Amino acid sequence: MAKLTEKQADLFRGKNWGTVTTLRSDGSPHSTPVWIDTDGEKVLFNTAVGRAKERHLRRDPRVSVVVLPADDQQSGYVSVTGVAELSEEGGVEHIDKLAKKYLGQDTYPYLQPGERRIIVRIEPEKIDSMGIG
Amino acid sequence: MAKLTEKQADLFRGKNWGTVTTLRSDGSPHSTPVWIDTDGEKVLFNTAVGRAKERHLRRDPRVSVVVLPADDQQSGYVSVTGVAELSEEGGVEHIDKLAKKYLGQDTYPYLQPGERRIIVRIEPEKIDSMGIG
Repeated sequence: MAKLTEKQADLFRGKNWGTVTTLRSDGSPHSTPVWIDTDGEKVLFNTAVGRAKERHLRRDPRVSVVVLPADDQQSGYVSVTGVAELSEEGGVEHIDKLAKKYLGQDTYPYLQPGERRIIVRIEPEKIDSMGIG
Repeated sequence: MAKLTEKQADLFRGKNWGTVTTLRSDGSPHSTPVWIDTDGEKVLFNTAVGRAKERHLRRDPRVSVVVLPADDQQSGYVSVTGVAELSEEGGVEHIDKLAKKYLGQDTYPYLQPGERRIIVRIEPEKIDSMGIG
């Protein structure tokens, strides 16, 4: 397992968007922006049951996430590749936490009736970075 | 072939960073930030002979690029999946054009002796977007 430095973890803690890539059933890359987070070791994002990312990761857990500093994208980046674990436990609380960070709202305003939120935790196997030591 | 709207093309023309994903030989996703461009139909970025992206794309040309507006990442995004064509012709002029856009410099300042720059042109097969109509 590769280890994030404190500065790299801070980039995932800050109000910076990530881009996550999962693999379609034909193996092609599927990439979307996500709100990101970390517990200091794993990289976290939040999705929902039935979304493409969730379906892809249940079939093939390999995933990558890239983050750049939102206030100066030229200054560096961190790219993490690893394997995802999906958990429904705490999923709604986690999307609320992300809504607070990214929208400044206490509750995620887009939750649909019956929507099942999923925390995705990525154990870093490879970490590439530039400018973020 | 999917077609970019004018607003989507403008996002690739503007000073916004992209994240490009290629596939390693084991099929896992390899993602890095890139300077991006478009000719109005294809999505372009620039790499060099010997880089991971170049080596991956020679073996498997499937690729994705995501771009968010740098000045307001919450406002939307465009995600393009397609197949890459690599060309060395005009590669140095193209990285100079990108250096002008991203660094404000007439010439790409990091070119190494003997470095062979490559234009990657992606024909969009799928375009997903939010907020960028």
